[in-house]
Amino acid sequence: MTDIACLLEAEREQIEEALGRHLPREGEYPERIHEAIRYASLDGGKRLRPIITFAATEALGYDRASVVKVACAIEFVHCCSLVLDDLPSMDDAETRRGRPTTHRAFGVATAILAADALLMHAFKLVAENGVDVGAGGERLAAAIRGLATAVGSFGMVGGQHVDLEAASRDRIDEQTLEYILSRKTGSLFAAAATIGGTLLGASESDLACLDRYARALGLAYQIVDDILDATGDAAVLGKDVGKDANRNSFVTVHGVGAAREAASGLLGGAREILGDLDGDGEVLSAIADFCLERTR
Amino acid sequence: MTDIACLLEAEREQIEEALGRHLPREGEYPERIHEAIRYASLDGGKRLRPIITFAATEALGYDRASVVKVACAIEFVHCCSLVLDDLPSMDDAETRRGRPTTHRAFGVATAILAADALLMHAFKLVAENGVDVGAGGERLAAAIRGLATAVGSFGMVGGQHVDLEAASRDRIDEQTLEYILSRKTGSLFAAAATIGGTLLGASESDLACLDRYARALGLAYQIVDDILDATGDAAVLGKDVGKDANRNSFVTVHGVGAAREAASGLLGGAREILGDLDGDGEVLSAIADFCLERTR
Repeated sequence: MTDIACLLEAEREQIEEALGRHLPREGEYPERIHEAIRYASLDGGKRLRPIITFAATEALGYDRASVVKVACAIEFVHCCSLVLDDLPSMDDAETRRGRPTTHRAFGVATAILAADALLMHAFKLVAENGVDVGAGGERLAAAIRGLATAVGSFGMVGGQHVDLEAASRDRIDEQTLEYILSRKTGSLFAAAATIGGTLLGASESDLACLDRYARALGLAYQIVDDILDATGDAAVLGKDVGKDANRNSFVTVHGVGAAREAASGLLGGAREILGDLDGDGEVLSAIADFCLERTR
Repeated sequence: MTDIACLLEAEREQIEEALGRHLPREGEYPERIHEAIRYASLDGGKRLRPIITFAATEALGYDRASVVKVACAIEFVHCCSLVLDDLPSMDDAETRRGRPTTHRAFGVATAILAADALLMHAFKLVAENGVDVGAGGERLAAAIRGLATAVGSFGMVGGQHVDLEAASRDRIDEQTLEYILSRKTGSLFAAAATIGGTLLGASESDLACLDRYARALGLAYQIVDDILDATGDAAVLGKDVGKDANRNSFVTVHGVGAAREAASGLLGGAREILGDLDGDGEVLSAIADFCLERTR
């Protein structure tokens, strides 16, 4: 493993532990919904978004311990989105992280309810984190607004909606494709990079810089996802592959070569943006490298 | 119409206007998701929850204008829950407020996405309202936590989950039935009655009093709902009736007579609780009367 891969693996283990600690405990009533919540969010995933939260917070000189709840919240929102994306009415996926998708394991109704419960839990954690660090009303409001916007109809939900609409059409224009890619992944990446700093009182210019970095990273990440979907191995990825073959992914529109080039260009841009940061962007820069080189 | 029915009708019109004003505008991209959001939340409903928000805020001596966004947020959360409850995987309802349910009009995927977008919009509005009234971090955090808890796995989502589980069983025990009724309706009623005051800095004792009032009101409201489902007219109600006949509603468990008695007792209790309020509970008391006498 490269240095960054080792670092990310160590991070992942820490985050896994924090996620388990910040969820309702196993066996809490209603038991089955909490089982589904834990199933949907524990034991799997690269945990890249909370890793970004920690790296961004530390890049600004703050302690990562001060944003653990935010980091967990971001990951729970991501897990919520995976449960919803996998539903029969959406991507109709059978496996995720090497296991049956949540609706296959618990039924569609419980999956939908678990997804919304995760979302609510995330907002609770951000509010609690705000109190923990003594954030004033304006900072907490900005963090809550930021997360709600990242998820809502102008963020992830909007991206998923346009994606589903586009899937039923033959062709997709450049602009719509970029909209989908940027909203489905970029919005939450940006929230991951900025909400901790927002609570802690980071400068507007640093937050704007982290926002731009994370949006470029997210777009590249999604393009690499499309490449892996087209060329990857289901056993390594732990989820269905080839599902996007008849979908409007960057690869089906532009081909694998152009996709690799676009991802590489975006990540170069992301690294450059970090030059404007009043802090140490080294780990964030390494994360950009990792995103390009990943195989799962 | 009784005085309170007239008052509620006037309130309803005001709220209808505010709801329209506080949603993304028609035609905003992505158009179809915003159309679904507006379809799911405008032109219908008694708007009882925002009416409770206004009445509770005024009972404490504050201006209703200071909690308009919270009132809208509560109603958007309610609309979100209706969209989800109506889904094929849940209650599989065809009509709501005299029109096709959101998933019948827009498809299941768009309905689920619109519901989550409404939820996100609600949190944005509460955060904005916090800034508008100059709420500090702790007050805003309490409001956000309160709303997230009311919706999440220990609130509405938990209630809906237990309800669906119980529907597949032959018998239901008293405790489970009360859990369902209190969580499906009582949690959001309590949030409606307390979140405005929480942002504005109402006393703990007044908030606790409003919380108890609203939970009793919510439980009674849900029991009356079950009575109307068993005895009411679909044309008047504007939604499917008799859907709960094979479900564990208060009426199927205890019969209509006992249900009427229970609702009446709860509402008497709710009015009594208002005696502890350091404020004028007259309108809140009239709302309790209305809840018992309503026919739709």
